[in-house]
Amino acid sequence: MTDRQLIQGVKGTRDFYPEDWAFEMWFYEKIKEVSQLFGFQEYEGPLLETLALYAAKSGEELVKKQAFTLQDRSGETLALRSEMTPSLARMVAQKSGELIFPVKWFTFGRRFRYEKPQKGRGREFFQWDCDTLGLDSPEADAEIIAIAATMYQKLGLTPQEVRIKVNDRQLMQKKLISLELDEEAIVKAFRLIDKKDKVNREDFLEMAKEQGFTADQALAMIQVTEEKNAYLDSPSLIKIFEILKRYGVADYIEFDPGIVRGLEYYTGTVFEGWDVKGEFRAIWGGGRYGNLTAEVGGKEKIPGVGFAMGDMVIAEILKANGKYPTLPQTTTKLLVTIFSLELLDQSINLTNELRKNNINTELYLDPQTKLDKQIKYADKKSIPWVTILGPNEVQKNTVTLKNLETGEQKTISQEQLLNELKQNSN
Amino acid sequence: MTDRQLIQGVKGTRDFYPEDWAFEMWFYEKIKEVSQLFGFQEYEGPLLETLALYAAKSGEELVKKQAFTLQDRSGETLALRSEMTPSLARMVAQKSGELIFPVKWFTFGRRFRYEKPQKGRGREFFQWDCDTLGLDSPEADAEIIAIAATMYQKLGLTPQEVRIKVNDRQLMQKKLISLELDEEAIVKAFRLIDKKDKVNREDFLEMAKEQGFTADQALAMIQVTEEKNAYLDSPSLIKIFEILKRYGVADYIEFDPGIVRGLEYYTGTVFEGWDVKGEFRAIWGGGRYGNLTAEVGGKEKIPGVGFAMGDMVIAEILKANGKYPTLPQTTTKLLVTIFSLELLDQSINLTNELRKNNINTELYLDPQTKLDKQIKYADKKSIPWVTILGPNEVQKNTVTLKNLETGEQKTISQEQLLNELKQNSN
Repeated sequence: MTDRQLIQGVKGTRDFYPEDWAFEMWFYEKIKEVSQLFGFQEYEGPLLETLALYAAKSGEELVKKQAFTLQDRSGETLALRSEMTPSLARMVAQKSGELIFPVKWFTFGRRFRYEKPQKGRGREFFQWDCDTLGLDSPEADAEIIAIAATMYQKLGLTPQEVRIKVNDRQLMQKKLISLELDEEAIVKAFRLIDKKDKVNREDFLEMAKEQGFTADQALAMIQVTEEKNAYLDSPSLIKIFEILKRYGVADYIEFDPGIVRGLEYYTGTVFEGWDVKGEFRAIWGGGRYGNLTAEVGGKEKIPGVGFAMGDMVIAEILKANGKYPTLPQTTTKLLVTIFSLELLDQSINLTNELRKNNINTELYLDPQTKLDKQIKYADKKSIPWVTILGPNEVQKNTVTLKNLETGEQKTISQEQLLNELKQNSN
Repeated sequence: MTDRQLIQGVKGTRDFYPEDWAFEMWFYEKIKEVSQLFGFQEYEGPLLETLALYAAKSGEELVKKQAFTLQDRSGETLALRSEMTPSLARMVAQKSGELIFPVKWFTFGRRFRYEKPQKGRGREFFQWDCDTLGLDSPEADAEIIAIAATMYQKLGLTPQEVRIKVNDRQLMQKKLISLELDEEAIVKAFRLIDKKDKVNREDFLEMAKEQGFTADQALAMIQVTEEKNAYLDSPSLIKIFEILKRYGVADYIEFDPGIVRGLEYYTGTVFEGWDVKGEFRAIWGGGRYGNLTAEVGGKEKIPGVGFAMGDMVIAEILKANGKYPTLPQTTTKLLVTIFSLELLDQSINLTNELRKNNINTELYLDPQTKLDKQIKYADKKSIPWVTILGPNEVQKNTVTLKNLETGEQKTISQEQLLNELKQNSN
């Protein structure tokens, strides 16, 4: 470096300082808890895949506009993982002979999308994915939805704050066929309907016209997305709603014929998480896919259902509803101070003893620093306790323990110290 | 897809099926435990950085030969994170006014290097990084080494299996200056010495000649790397070894004047983890760096010390020493079977009750499958318990609980069931 300007991070990426990372870990713990409660196993995949994998199944927009791509030294085009489902499909197809079906897997990891960075949206973010493969049943769909609803509960989000909108693409397909739309037109119609909530009626009609639909067809499409009782024509949705009622999460659920999802690989039930006030974009989304393993080149069509929930919108939703957690600033229980260079060894011995007893202990690492500065350091780092080992303590084989919150201090034996700190363990 | 060939993963990347990921999570739990025991806080950084960040500080080899690079749409060259230290330096420099020093941070995340994939080495791997910044003291160096030694202990690796080789670059510098080498030649000499263990004596002398050293200088260099008592000339090393003795980990430690590390940013103590038999490459490595924050463009020189330990060599070392862990195949406690379609609702209710009591429960999701097949499924998935809710049980408000390991089964009330499973919680 010659110009001595601080090198900047890449736009849309995030630096996770300990206080930022604490949120991710808190969310991850909840993910683990909820997923395992439903009997799901954790997996992970590579962050680099061939571009071909994504081209095989995602909507065009995602691949061409949103992928971070690079050339391998062998000339192959690779992409940073933009979503998990294609890797999942590849992994399941790859070992379909060995795996025990249904496969019920979850993961929490990074995704990359070349999007315009904005509130709740970065180019690099984390996502929770949860999928059941090898079964095509309303029970499997209902369970996946119930997992997301259970996460709402664990996050403290109420049905007054967040909802899950559910629809069935097959039901929609039937309705659209009755409008005399062919298969190709139906794909277009789904893409159009997916954007409906982002534009006004006039713009929707205009977009429909551009896509080659007649005005009657466009108006009929709008009507279809507003039929609030259309689910009664879908035995599968009826069953799903019934099961979700049994799971005690019905208050979060609503049928919404306007939800179709943008990705082309969905073939049945589709769902999205939304905040009730509609201030944010979809919190998460998912659905049933019938052909994914075959589309990535697998021998069999293994049906699946799953969802993905990102970390950034969830954080915004929690903040907006006053549910963002207060997280501990440190897991360190106490700071062992150093009275003087001569007494350093005693402080090291004490530190060692505490750590052997599994007490998270920081030793002050500069024996030249004055004691009051060491204590201030502990306070600034939110470490609740400090010990002082001066000549008096060493002579009597005791230690002074100070609680930085209350200011109280007492001189006790090392054995008492261990007991005290173990009792105060959180 | 037209050719219906399964799309392959990218060479050198890894698919983590649940059994593979379980090892990573096991290692990560140990990392968290050990790091927090020493009072370190967890952080993370982006996986994408500008190439400039790496060029600013790493050895040339790492950047030019080993980086996965890509062009941003704005034309800037980005690199997938090949090591953590540059990101750490950038993050610390960026907030140096707000952070409380010493900063003691750890992280466990992905790194990418375009290397030839082989045993213990992939193009995409995970690494544990642990660093103390803002202090230049032998106490800080000793603590970092003690953390790695404590990890050996937690992994069950003994001093008969693994060691930590320690040296001091400043000590080496003094020795090399006495050979009449100037600063530039010393940089070359370090790079050469770092490769010494990988080649025989003859090749080393040849390499030295190519680098412009005289035969006398080359021989003197070899001699320097073999002076087993040279640490007595380094007050800092003497202090470090003394502290490590106090920490009770001295058996793992040896002075090795042949260890200098390949990266150019090290300015003091350097260390590497090795298996005693010498069957593997270095398990991990680290050292003291004086100028990193300034080299990435920060205003101040903030001294630091740290190490990085990868997941892949550790796994090989554990296997070679019979210490690779036996990991549970599932966290699921029981499978609730479905007796018949008519009794599905009862099984859902029971499942819901169990989950409300935080018992990890899988519900069999296909009500059409025969009961014995459902039980076989639980067995194959290593789920320890199954419940059966048939017409008899439902009538009497009981449930049959079967232990798949012992084959024992009993019919009990739902309340007893909850108690039984809570007692058997691990």
